[in-house]
Amino acid sequence: MDSPARFIDHTLLKADTTSAQIRLLCEEAVEYGFASVCLPPSFVPLAADLLYGSSVAVGTVVGFPLGYAAVAVKVFETAEAVRSGAGEIDMVIALGAAREGRFSAVEEEIRRVVAAASGAKVKVILECCYFDDPLKEALTERVVAAGAAYVKTSTGFGPAGATLADVRLLALRAGGRIGVKAAGGIRDWGSFREMLEAGATRIGTSAGVAIVDQWLQWRRGES
Amino acid sequence: MDSPARFIDHTLLKADTTSAQIRLLCEEAVEYGFASVCLPPSFVPLAADLLYGSSVAVGTVVGFPLGYAAVAVKVFETAEAVRSGAGEIDMVIALGAAREGRFSAVEEEIRRVVAAASGAKVKVILECCYFDDPLKEALTERVVAAGAAYVKTSTGFGPAGATLADVRLLALRAGGRIGVKAAGGIRDWGSFREMLEAGATRIGTSAGVAIVDQWLQWRRGES
Repeated sequence: MDSPARFIDHTLLKADTTSAQIRLLCEEAVEYGFASVCLPPSFVPLAADLLYGSSVAVGTVVGFPLGYAAVAVKVFETAEAVRSGAGEIDMVIALGAAREGRFSAVEEEIRRVVAAASGAKVKVILECCYFDDPLKEALTERVVAAGAAYVKTSTGFGPAGATLADVRLLALRAGGRIGVKAAGGIRDWGSFREMLEAGATRIGTSAGVAIVDQWLQWRRGES
Repeated sequence: MDSPARFIDHTLLKADTTSAQIRLLCEEAVEYGFASVCLPPSFVPLAADLLYGSSVAVGTVVGFPLGYAAVAVKVFETAEAVRSGAGEIDMVIALGAAREGRFSAVEEEIRRVVAAASGAKVKVILECCYFDDPLKEALTERVVAAGAAYVKTSTGFGPAGATLADVRLLALRAGGRIGVKAAGGIRDWGSFREMLEAGATRIGTSAGVAIVDQWLQWRRGES
């Protein structure tokens, strides 16, 4: 197996993140060859400068982590992020609307964010811990219909993170039409590998460096 | 002592808040005479309709709860909220910038949100649990200088909520120039009363109904 780095969104989304931490995150992303960095919107201009000319995408979050920002604000935040250099957008859906079964409203807000992203990849966070399986499936259909690039399990700030069962469910429903991103609580090579086997095509984690190091050891053990 | 209701921001900020819960929140606010409701931005239009003609202010949050949205997005979110009927705005500062000592950047973003609020009261959340006392004091000075109406202790989503020591510190530093709002973990009349005695002039809580009921019992006991 190739390095897992290309599946990893190297993530730092803590409330008190500093510029120095963002610099380190971007250096590590280049060194390890991660797919992207995923960082707070206010640091997108800095990361875009630091990663200019590299193969690492700049990713950020919209309506994060609670999902209840006004739709117009999610749209504005997306456009602002893309204008500042973001190539990937992880948005949180309106969880209350989803809980109430207002699927058309959820699909419409995703559609508007996808339009505002003007080509940047949009990953749509369902925050699975709030929903039962039929609701997760119905929402995944809406994510596909709205033109997003990925459906994503969790913010990492909710009551629970990614589960293997959710990744399997989302992957089955997505059926290869869009990617599946697992995030929240994935901190070692063992659980990372299980997420890939369950159908994840991208994984968000703040432990990317440790995971690649563990994979190197594991590969030595296998060979 | 008069009813504590007039000090209370009747608060519901859970990620999966539904319209039905917002309706109940607004009914209770009118019935109990709370100062305001504090609810997710996407529910401001509904609450503004429900509370039209009442004395209860519609409050909402900006850059909440992590504080790291781009400044332009906080400004847009504020204008959108006020346009939709919000009269009070609880914003979170850029916590990373504050941690790095970039106080001018913090003051400038508050100033811009205050301008966008065009007369709506702005309460500025420091998220005290991330800072030492000298930093909290320096930030309070910036909040005053930027023209905000209140300095506020916490989001209720951070590692810790309001403490009596923080309320005393902020009240001492504010020196009556602006109000002090305590929020995060205040769930009964005993702790509510201590917060008022420490210098809080507004209190955010989701337990307002229970607190007023406990105050009624306490008043009977006193008389």
